[in-house]
Amino acid sequence: MEQLLQVSTPDHGDNSSSAAGGQTGKEQQAAGVGILLQIMMLVLSFVLGHVLRRHKVYYLPEASASLLIGLLVGGLANVSDTETSIRTWFNFHEEFFFLFLLPPIIFQSGFSLAPKPFFSNFGAIVTFAIFGTFIASVVTGVLVYLGGLMFLMYKLPFVECLMFGALISATDPVTVLSIFQELGTDVNLYALVFGESVLNDAMAISLYRTMSLVRQNASSTQNFLMVIVRFLETFVGSLSAGVGVGFTSALLFKYAGLDIDNLQNLECCLFVLFPYFSYMLAEGLGLSGIVSILFTGIVMKHYTYSNLSENSQRFVSAFFDLISSLAETFVFIYMGFDIAMEQHSWSHVGFIFFSILFIVVARAANVFSCAYLVNLARPATRKIPAKHQKALWYSGLRGAMAFALALQSVHDLPEGHGQTIFTATTAIVVLTVLLIGGSTGTMLEALQVVGDAHDGSLGENLEGNHNHSYVAPSYDEDSSSGNKFRMKLKEFHRSAASFTALDKNYLTPFFTSQNGDEDDDFDEPMPSSRRGGFEH
Amino acid sequence: MEQLLQVSTPDHGDNSSSAAGGQTGKEQQAAGVGILLQIMMLVLSFVLGHVLRRHKVYYLPEASASLLIGLLVGGLANVSDTETSIRTWFNFHEEFFFLFLLPPIIFQSGFSLAPKPFFSNFGAIVTFAIFGTFIASVVTGVLVYLGGLMFLMYKLPFVECLMFGALISATDPVTVLSIFQELGTDVNLYALVFGESVLNDAMAISLYRTMSLVRQNASSTQNFLMVIVRFLETFVGSLSAGVGVGFTSALLFKYAGLDIDNLQNLECCLFVLFPYFSYMLAEGLGLSGIVSILFTGIVMKHYTYSNLSENSQRFVSAFFDLISSLAETFVFIYMGFDIAMEQHSWSHVGFIFFSILFIVVARAANVFSCAYLVNLARPATRKIPAKHQKALWYSGLRGAMAFALALQSVHDLPEGHGQTIFTATTAIVVLTVLLIGGSTGTMLEALQVVGDAHDGSLGENLEGNHNHSYVAPSYDEDSSSGNKFRMKLKEFHRSAASFTALDKNYLTPFFTSQNGDEDDDFDEPMPSSRRGGFEH
Repeated sequence: MEQLLQVSTPDHGDNSSSAAGGQTGKEQQAAGVGILLQIMMLVLSFVLGHVLRRHKVYYLPEASASLLIGLLVGGLANVSDTETSIRTWFNFHEEFFFLFLLPPIIFQSGFSLAPKPFFSNFGAIVTFAIFGTFIASVVTGVLVYLGGLMFLMYKLPFVECLMFGALISATDPVTVLSIFQELGTDVNLYALVFGESVLNDAMAISLYRTMSLVRQNASSTQNFLMVIVRFLETFVGSLSAGVGVGFTSALLFKYAGLDIDNLQNLECCLFVLFPYFSYMLAEGLGLSGIVSILFTGIVMKHYTYSNLSENSQRFVSAFFDLISSLAETFVFIYMGFDIAMEQHSWSHVGFIFFSILFIVVARAANVFSCAYLVNLARPATRKIPAKHQKALWYSGLRGAMAFALALQSVHDLPEGHGQTIFTATTAIVVLTVLLIGGSTGTMLEALQVVGDAHDGSLGENLEGNHNHSYVAPSYDEDSSSGNKFRMKLKEFHRSAASFTALDKNYLTPFFTSQNGDEDDDFDEPMPSSRRGGFEH
Repeated sequence: MEQLLQVSTPDHGDNSSSAAGGQTGKEQQAAGVGILLQIMMLVLSFVLGHVLRRHKVYYLPEASASLLIGLLVGGLANVSDTETSIRTWFNFHEEFFFLFLLPPIIFQSGFSLAPKPFFSNFGAIVTFAIFGTFIASVVTGVLVYLGGLMFLMYKLPFVECLMFGALISATDPVTVLSIFQELGTDVNLYALVFGESVLNDAMAISLYRTMSLVRQNASSTQNFLMVIVRFLETFVGSLSAGVGVGFTSALLFKYAGLDIDNLQNLECCLFVLFPYFSYMLAEGLGLSGIVSILFTGIVMKHYTYSNLSENSQRFVSAFFDLISSLAETFVFIYMGFDIAMEQHSWSHVGFIFFSILFIVVARAANVFSCAYLVNLARPATRKIPAKHQKALWYSGLRGAMAFALALQSVHDLPEGHGQTIFTATTAIVVLTVLLIGGSTGTMLEALQVVGDAHDGSLGENLEGNHNHSYVAPSYDEDSSSGNKFRMKLKEFHRSAASFTALDKNYLTPFFTSQNGDEDDDFDEPMPSSRRGGFEH
């Protein structure tokens, strides 16, 4: 931090020893002003969000409002020539985003997850997130490259096009999901959108980093295989690390005897350190912290949570809800402010226009092809309906993850290239957050997936109407058909089905103090999810 | 953060564009490992602290244990030649300390404060904190300067001696207080030690910064007056800012109508932002954030807190307890690690030895002279007994505040001078934390102030035995004596007494939803203080 500040004041040279005292005081004052502004914007966002929700203004969700506040204040700071030392507090630092803002958001996603719809759609989610994101990245990359070749847009090398494709394929869960919840949509659609957007962040990061490595090594042989192997390695490794940390925490809290009343603080301290431990363990091993902390969240909710004392249970739920709300809102403000402050190369309007076109095409290729594959493997009663596919296609707005990776690409890529990618990503983020975020409600109503009673709406479930149709059915009736894809995809479903039994008979009794008979955990009233505390 | 990392890897030069991708990945991995280590040390500290407390090992309090863990791991990292990129995560950054670790600790001090003993001893506390710290700073500074003149120790200019005197006069509340609480000591002694150690941090910072300014301007005329005026300005300004923010929050929560059940998250989000707002407001105005956030804590507990919904009340108490526990423990680990890693100039052993001697003398001058003044103004029944004075003298261990200011002096002072001060401070911190921290229990027993029933021990009060002898009495019977000091000091007492009436009749009804009749807030079972959740 000290170094950071010393860098940001280059005028503070060799004769620093005499001036440093005042300088330090001044820097601290600048920091105070900077953080003060951030807090005021946060408060404003929360209050504005509350007012908008209360008046049911769906075309300006909280995330859009936060982004606009950030843009506005950033613009004002730009115009009013604010001091550089204050501005540095608003520069979007990818490290800060990845290490401090992202972990609580993703953990809360896992922690507030309703396991039943998630696991019964696990096969589909993984298909969309892994295979689909891969398709989307490649399609976007190839189209951008072709566009460059045809002089439609700024020409980038092929690998850099693929990097752009990877980073722009990361969809953001925040805004869309908060609207989904508010309107009460189909649980399966919710699970699909949610699961995809969380997991594809991990895929996009992995793809981006792999491409970045490929670019440096320039060994273009076996690239494709390398990408696949490296991704699988990362994914499986991170998943194992996350689940491992989760199970460790469950055993610790089961046997440490901390659930007596006067140790609540110690219990909570340890509990809140575990998710972060999981994230940093994965990052430290060169794996994906996001995937790891997501699964730690799922495991900790399902096993560790029930080993806590009742007070601590209430506390940690509220705690993670609070922390993730703050982080989420802050991300959008921070992004808005940085967009207003950064240097953009707006000369490439063509690049922006065609990128938007291409990502729409790429997302269609992702969603519809994956949905086709999933439907092949599913029984007739459980096929993903066309309207759900359309909703899924529509809800692919780009957020902080794409933005952070684009910012990183400015450092990773040669002069000009990274800048172009960053500007395009910025434009895409702002447009999709404002347009898609603002119109999701209308879209969901148009597609008639709001309050759909076909197989239980989110809204109904929220009121405790436990609908048992989401248990993964046994797939025996479907064994007649047998092409390769179906078999492969069905494995996911089978694993989900057998997982329920495994969980009930072995995992729950082993890792928690409950006996395995009650499987209340799976039936609990739906997502106390992301914005939970606010709405219901 | 990004800049920070770029600085820390000087080998990553102009050809960065090609290597940056891998570099970024590596940096992130290093960050992961660094933070992972920190989390592991935190967990270790908590578990160790718990075990030590359970076995009633008072000679190794949690703070000492954390410091030792930090020292140990830092030493290992030093020996095993850990990579620089990982080490940078452990450098103690004063900015990080002042902006992120200190605010929650100080806020929790104010928030968990039992107002009755604090306000009934307010005059004494202010005397010790302001006048006493001033005496201690000057005495230390003069002695160190004289020591330099007499070739006893490294010679520093007079202003730098005073800076050293100021920074080394900041006593740390954490360790001593946790032991006080555990053993259950006299509430008045507790209030004195607590109040002094919190307020003198603010005084020490102000003095240090003022001296730093004096040093730069080198206008040695009117220095003394300037110090006084500037300090008063800062103190009164910060206090007003803090109280103002606190009252604003009380009104907001009284009228916003957020205490209905489904808005708990919003309510908590706003509540936890206010203290930080207060801190940053004061810092942004060039005032003292510590003083401001302390009084915000007191006001928010007394007024805002009762305007919250019951769930939120439970939550925010646990939240601040959690956050401050984490910050406190982390500070000691962080300090230990940094001490083990930094370059020290151990050549000045003489400086260290004499400094220790001098601060012992200076603290005696502080405590006994101020106690004499306070006793002049107090009625015979309320005089500070000699054993309390001794306990107060003994409990002046130096902690993170002195350390952070010393680290800052390395940047503020010319080569060598700052280094000497830093090394001496480091040695003093380690020695006092380990020795005083470890022997406070024995000392309290030797002085027979443990479980003292004379006017209600802390232990008794914890069990809800509301002892009404702490209400500031009316001082009419004492009006016969009348020298200048007495009059001055009595004003504090009178203000405390009239404050109780003011609070009951006007403030409580205006700022909270209660009517003024119940003054339960003042009678609530004693400090749910710093380590509250752990022990009772």
